[in-house]
Amino acid sequence: VAIRDRQGEGYLPDGTTRLSRDGERLRHFMGTSTFAEATVMPEIALAKVSPEAPFAGAAVFACGLSTGIGAALYTAKVQPGASVAVFGCGLVGLGCVIGARLAGAERIVAVDLSEGRLEHARHHGATETMLGGPDTVASLRESTGGFGVDYTFEATGNVAVMRQAVEAAREAWGLATMCGVAGKGELLEVLPRLLITGRRVTGSSFGGVRGRTQVPQLVERWLGGEIDVDDLLSHRMSLDDVNHAFELMERQDGIRTILEIS
Amino acid sequence: VAIRDRQGEGYLPDGTTRLSRDGERLRHFMGTSTFAEATVMPEIALAKVSPEAPFAGAAVFACGLSTGIGAALYTAKVQPGASVAVFGCGLVGLGCVIGARLAGAERIVAVDLSEGRLEHARHHGATETMLGGPDTVASLRESTGGFGVDYTFEATGNVAVMRQAVEAAREAWGLATMCGVAGKGELLEVLPRLLITGRRVTGSSFGGVRGRTQVPQLVERWLGGEIDVDDLLSHRMSLDDVNHAFELMERQDGIRTILEIS
Repeated sequence: VAIRDRQGEGYLPDGTTRLSRDGERLRHFMGTSTFAEATVMPEIALAKVSPEAPFAGAAVFACGLSTGIGAALYTAKVQPGASVAVFGCGLVGLGCVIGARLAGAERIVAVDLSEGRLEHARHHGATETMLGGPDTVASLRESTGGFGVDYTFEATGNVAVMRQAVEAAREAWGLATMCGVAGKGELLEVLPRLLITGRRVTGSSFGGVRGRTQVPQLVERWLGGEIDVDDLLSHRMSLDDVNHAFELMERQDGIRTILEIS
Repeated sequence: VAIRDRQGEGYLPDGTTRLSRDGERLRHFMGTSTFAEATVMPEIALAKVSPEAPFAGAAVFACGLSTGIGAALYTAKVQPGASVAVFGCGLVGLGCVIGARLAGAERIVAVDLSEGRLEHARHHGATETMLGGPDTVASLRESTGGFGVDYTFEATGNVAVMRQAVEAAREAWGLATMCGVAGKGELLEVLPRLLITGRRVTGSSFGGVRGRTQVPQLVERWLGGEIDVDDLLSHRMSLDDVNHAFELMERQDGIRTILEIS
């Protein structure tokens, strides 16, 4: 809260901006302005991670990867032996797959429209994969004796997929966790009967991860070999190519592009 | 589950019906057929309550009252000192008010369209009451510094009210519990942003109460003076007047009508 009010306006918590170009004052993007060669950011926005962590790999813990892993470990608190379905296998969804594996889930079903991303999901711990479509909910229910899976995670931001995640959650105790950010004004439609019969719906912001204490712990698990970050770093380029990096992101080429600022 | 499959068809678990009129076989209504002078019901559908409990008062623990109390105590697990809003003050909603009081909630805001029902709510422990309307969410947020209340309960079955219950739940940890049964095909619309910023939505069937062990406990709390059941028994009539009782229910006259079968 200390940060957020000002961050939305592009200022530091003290109401100033410390960036400029050719004398013109620039605001801070998302409170960090990490696309700048040098930036000033609030001390409370920093987490201290192991000095042995390579920068390129540490970068993905600043948001997407931690969000997904945290959604499974801290928001949903996936139980050992549970069944899990992850809708969307970008960085956040792959994080959910990794978090579910670390939590000891028995079945981890990854759903995506891209075979390439499903391949990534298998690499990170998905025990089954499924091409997404209108029959996804029916297939997941069928494979669980009609009940649905214990934990579902939505990581696409598409409200129709969110609805699938709710409907695929298990009767009596299933938990559907929304990680994606929907378009402005879009609504998630829920059949109340699904709630009454024992499903729960929750959201996860930054995976419920406490940035200053738990991000360093996740980085340790990466360095300890439990999380393969290299597989998630699809392209590396210099800051001059930042617009090309956005193009790659828009056409869903790769999981993450790393900008290296010399 | 042992009961439910057959119950929907109006049969006992063994697939038979034990009721008849003038030689014509009748099915069992809701698995119990409590409108009959004599009925056969599955032993596992019975809970043994204190022999000191008067029948008329015990009746409301069979469904609505236990559902509301249980939603607060067992589904939402309201914490001492918490803020609570209850949408709808029929028997289920009044049960939520009672449950929130028993759980030690500090603020209990009851919302209904009827001043008479709000009067009941105050009697059972509501600390504030509010006539429902389009501004209900804004009022609840305003009275909590803009954040919303810790626990909301919906007990109307109206999907627009369900949406209000979700939107009035507190940012960061608010829990909205749906107790009402919506019309067939009606959808609850949820702004995903509300979930991402930390609200949860759940449903409650029979308040999460374990019928055989916890209904007797609730009856004990009534006999011990913690729950005023007499206030909820608005009319008493004989079985011959059952259709009049339905009319009273449809025009929301009173909380519950008790049928006395001699």
